[in-house]
Amino acid sequence: MGRVHKNFKVRAPDPRLAIIDERLKNVKRIFVVVSGKGGVGKSLIATTLSLILTKRSHSVGLLDLDFHGPSCHFILGAKGAMPTEEKGIIPPEVHGIKFMSLVYYVGDEPLPLRGTEISDTFTELLAITRWGRVDYLIVDAPPGIGEEVLDVIRLMKRSEFLIVTTPSSLVLKTVSRLTRLLLELKVPILGMVENMRITETKLVEEHAKRFGIKYLGPILFEYNLEKCLGNPKKLLRTKFTHNIKDIAKEIS
Amino acid sequence: MGRVHKNFKVRAPDPRLAIIDERLKNVKRIFVVVSGKGGVGKSLIATTLSLILTKRSHSVGLLDLDFHGPSCHFILGAKGAMPTEEKGIIPPEVHGIKFMSLVYYVGDEPLPLRGTEISDTFTELLAITRWGRVDYLIVDAPPGIGEEVLDVIRLMKRSEFLIVTTPSSLVLKTVSRLTRLLLELKVPILGMVENMRITETKLVEEHAKRFGIKYLGPILFEYNLEKCLGNPKKLLRTKFTHNIKDIAKEIS
Repeated sequence: MGRVHKNFKVRAPDPRLAIIDERLKNVKRIFVVVSGKGGVGKSLIATTLSLILTKRSHSVGLLDLDFHGPSCHFILGAKGAMPTEEKGIIPPEVHGIKFMSLVYYVGDEPLPLRGTEISDTFTELLAITRWGRVDYLIVDAPPGIGEEVLDVIRLMKRSEFLIVTTPSSLVLKTVSRLTRLLLELKVPILGMVENMRITETKLVEEHAKRFGIKYLGPILFEYNLEKCLGNPKKLLRTKFTHNIKDIAKEIS
Repeated sequence: MGRVHKNFKVRAPDPRLAIIDERLKNVKRIFVVVSGKGGVGKSLIATTLSLILTKRSHSVGLLDLDFHGPSCHFILGAKGAMPTEEKGIIPPEVHGIKFMSLVYYVGDEPLPLRGTEISDTFTELLAITRWGRVDYLIVDAPPGIGEEVLDVIRLMKRSEFLIVTTPSSLVLKTVSRLTRLLLELKVPILGMVENMRITETKLVEEHAKRFGIKYLGPILFEYNLEKCLGNPKKLLRTKFTHNIKDIAKEIS
């Protein structure tokens, strides 16, 4: 993973880390969907990608670690699905996806967590979840470029990162900070997705080029997506999904 | 402030808290722009509101605490403006606004901070900044509903909250969590702004009503805003600003 980032604190070894490695041992690939900036469509892309890969007969896990506002369960319409306990926690299957989310722990209540509590919750969640055999584990990453993103890197060692942005210069400023961090940590980057494009622009493509990252093409802004939330069948018929299919082909 | 939230940890008293009270003593009102969710236009609203109140001959301070990606300096086009030291830190005047930002501390480098480091940076920043006489201090709040929002409440006691959302049910889910937290903490709420409206919808208005919060009207989605970033003169001529002017009248 290259040299250790200056803010990457040395801590006492946590015995749960070995358990996590064991839990993830039959997971072939781990795709972490990140953006640095909120509201760019990270959760929708992570969930749609999971649905697409499942349709292609892959075994897929989806893990929602967005503690600011976990929303994959809402996009999936996962009402009633609950994890079960058996030598750990077995994720429920939702539309064929093995689904785990922080929402099972924090619920819909306001829950302001401190940094270390967040780290601890991630570690706990990963140490107890039994994914079993999975081709792709898609992770909806925590927002921002804080300690929580470093946690993901620390806890899930084979993570490959899919960076999501919109073609707004304001958004790109924040996304660039995250990109520089990932490059500095020398973790694998799958590419950069341009979401919510409204007019012709080269902004994101040029950004990706400058960073030496694969540009995974634009996804046009689609107002009707709002009506597909909670309805994966409808979601799979959108142009948005069509675009994500192309991206899935490129990265999987 | 009503009963203390269960996650509002008791800590050793920090001597800097008394200094902060002293520093803010000539600040008449503190408006904190929050959203819970990123990418809803919080920074743009905070900055535009500051510009409008300044134009109305008020003395205005703008404080950017969005550690995920401070961007008010970028919206203001505040290149070259730097704080100066004199018995503390004096914010530079940018377009008539006394402007302070985390960016003066973290720069554009990726800087993943831990929860307690963020708290500490806020405390430090507020303890050293000399606002002097100010009618309105507008705060671009940290994203999310984490400890950092509680920090703002703890450090700036007279904060009044302006909640920003978009009419997306996904966004509203997260914004609702923040709203419930603010209501639980019994802090003053100025109202809820609906930003980026594309089509007719009652979603946000009904949400505000359910929470017993003032609905501060819709701001229509305006694609050209992107071109006004860094150019306050241009920004002040947009429909967006026109809408914020109405909101400013309602809350100031």
